[in-house]
Amino acid sequence: MKYPVPKPTAPVNTTAPSSLANRGMAFEALLNTTNDAYRQQGLAVIHKKPTPIHVIHIANKGSESYIDKAFFEQPSTTDYNGVYRGHYIDFEAKETRNKTSFPLGNIHHHQIEHLRSITLHGGIGFILINFSQLTTVYLIPAHALCEFVDAHPRSSLPLEWIKEKGTVVPLGYTIPVPYLLIVDQLFFK
Amino acid sequence: MKYPVPKPTAPVNTTAPSSLANRGMAFEALLNTTNDAYRQQGLAVIHKKPTPIHVIHIANKGSESYIDKAFFEQPSTTDYNGVYRGHYIDFEAKETRNKTSFPLGNIHHHQIEHLRSITLHGGIGFILINFSQLTTVYLIPAHALCEFVDAHPRSSLPLEWIKEKGTVVPLGYTIPVPYLLIVDQLFFK
Repeated sequence: MKYPVPKPTAPVNTTAPSSLANRGMAFEALLNTTNDAYRQQGLAVIHKKPTPIHVIHIANKGSESYIDKAFFEQPSTTDYNGVYRGHYIDFEAKETRNKTSFPLGNIHHHQIEHLRSITLHGGIGFILINFSQLTTVYLIPAHALCEFVDAHPRSSLPLEWIKEKGTVVPLGYTIPVPYLLIVDQLFFK
Repeated sequence: MKYPVPKPTAPVNTTAPSSLANRGMAFEALLNTTNDAYRQQGLAVIHKKPTPIHVIHIANKGSESYIDKAFFEQPSTTDYNGVYRGHYIDFEAKETRNKTSFPLGNIHHHQIEHLRSITLHGGIGFILINFSQLTTVYLIPAHALCEFVDAHPRSSLPLEWIKEKGTVVPLGYTIPVPYLLIVDQLFFK
């Protein structure tokens, strides 16, 4: 007697979601979820820095006091830093709808210089670029980025160059953007 | 014939200012100057994180747009972090007018837990306490602080304990609070 063999179905918890955009979360939110998971698992302590805001005036209305005039400031460093396996980690995360390149105008010059000095001081520096239309996140080490910028200032990183110098970060569910897998490969060989 | 011998006068650039308070700068400003100098000298890349602010509303008046309702948030981590000699550095800076102890109520519990986990991940964590009335800044390693807090929650750090477990940071002019001298002694022996 032959029992019917069930057809394979998609596992409930796949490791590669079809699209970051489809999941209705911004790249920043996915990175915050990732960093929360890394902290909870005791793997790393990495936080997003607060957005710098220049406070001009604070209102006092009765018992309530709040900021009633303030401006967003340019960040002087990157957005994320922390400690992993005893090492200093520092990175910037960017998103683009472009499909063939990443315009360097999206990263401030002083952020690139910050990453350069992190590398010079023995820290681990990189950028993460989410090509939202390609559903692909690349990790690009700071030293490669700085080399490119020195040779081609005010340019764009071509996707071909990114594929050569960068590494794809496989996307997941519990840990949406598990970039430390790539950090392990590149910096802890 | 005897020439008059000039009386000794104070050198123009002493290394130990009589009082931080007398110099009209807040402790935070002195630490920012210190970190700027460390960066310019290529010694370390350490920044103060921006104060977290929760933005509620942004006003658009003509071409100008600014935040017209926002609140200060509790910081979830410490104020300062960065990289020094390839290592992750993380610290909180506090000031007190007390002369005999430092009340632990001045540090949030989650900041102490943050420093604990930094230490567990191989980072260098500590607090700097400026006893403004004593003109003395102490560096206290995170592991000593955590040990004390575990044994005496919701208490104060007695000055005697701080003198035993902490190290005085000698104050200077070009580098007002040269805490990396003490980091060298304690963590890079």
